[in-house]
Amino acid sequence: MSEATLTLTGALDPRERWTAQACPIGKAIEVVGNRSAFLLMREAFYGTTRFDDFAERVGVSESVAAARLKELTEAGLLERRPYREPGTRTRYDYHLTEAGADFFPVLAALMQWGDKWRGPSRVKLHHHDCGAPVHAELRCEHGHEVEVNDVDLVAHRTRTR
Amino acid sequence: MSEATLTLTGALDPRERWTAQACPIGKAIEVVGNRSAFLLMREAFYGTTRFDDFAERVGVSESVAAARLKELTEAGLLERRPYREPGTRTRYDYHLTEAGADFFPVLAALMQWGDKWRGPSRVKLHHHDCGAPVHAELRCEHGHEVEVNDVDLVAHRTRTR
Repeated sequence: MSEATLTLTGALDPRERWTAQACPIGKAIEVVGNRSAFLLMREAFYGTTRFDDFAERVGVSESVAAARLKELTEAGLLERRPYREPGTRTRYDYHLTEAGADFFPVLAALMQWGDKWRGPSRVKLHHHDCGAPVHAELRCEHGHEVEVNDVDLVAHRTRTR
Repeated sequence: MSEATLTLTGALDPRERWTAQACPIGKAIEVVGNRSAFLLMREAFYGTTRFDDFAERVGVSESVAAARLKELTEAGLLERRPYREPGTRTRYDYHLTEAGADFFPVLAALMQWGDKWRGPSRVKLHHHDCGAPVHAELRCEHGHEVEVNDVDLVAHRTRTR
C-alpha cells in the first residue's frame, strides 16, 4: 500500500514547522459538523422545507431539529421564509441559499464514500440531461482528473482566491 | 434565487412516500461525523502518523485523540503499524488505508466550501504535475460537469454498483 498523503511544498515543508490555522475544513465543520446537521442538509437537497418534515425524515427530536436548523440558518446555508395556509398563522419554512447549495459536493462525496465502503445504496445520483451516473471527483483547472497522491498543498502569500 | 434541490425520480417521487433508509451519507457520517474526526483525517493526509502529533496538531486532548483514532482505525480508514525507536518499546503509528485515502474528496469539498464561504485560506490544493489549482466537482460518466440542479436522484432495483 502506498501512502496517500498530499505533497507539502514551500513553507509547508516540513510539516513540523506549522500547524493548521484558520483551516477552511475546520471553518466548514464549525457550521456543518455533526450527524444531524449533515442529514438536515441532505433533506434540504431532497426538497424538504418544513420543520416537522425535517425532524421526522432525519429522525431527530424537535428540539434537536430546531437547534440545528437555527445554526444552519444563522450560518447562511438555509433561509427562513414565511408561508401561510388558509386559516392558520404565518409559519416559516427553510430553503437552501447559494452557500447552502454550494455544500452539495460535500454530501455527494460522503454519499459516494458510504456507497463504496459501507455497502452499496439503492439510491444513486444521475445527470438529468444525459442520464449517466454522477461522481464527486478532483480535477485541476487544466482539466486533469487528480488523485490524492498528485495533490500539492501550497501556501500562497496573499489571501487572494 | 432558484431552488437548488435534486430532482426526485421514479419511486422517489413524491418525497412524502419514503424516508432515507440505509443512507450512504448517514453511514459515512457514522464513521467520520464530528469535528475532531474530520481534522484527524485532514492531518493524516498532511502526513501525520504519530499519536502525539495528531493530538497536538488538531488541538484535542489525548483522550479525545485516542478515542477518535480508535474509531477511525476500527472503521478501516486508518491502520496501526508498529514502529520502534532505539532503546524504546514498540509503539504504533497511524496510516491511511485505501478506504481512508478514498475519503479525500470529502475533505477537499469541505476545504473548498470553507475557502469560498468562510474567508479565503492561504493554503490551496494544486495538481502536482501541471501546477493548476484543484477543485472538487461533480461530473457524470459521460464527462459533463454537473450542477446540483442537474442531478436526478434515482432508485435502482438491485444493489449493484
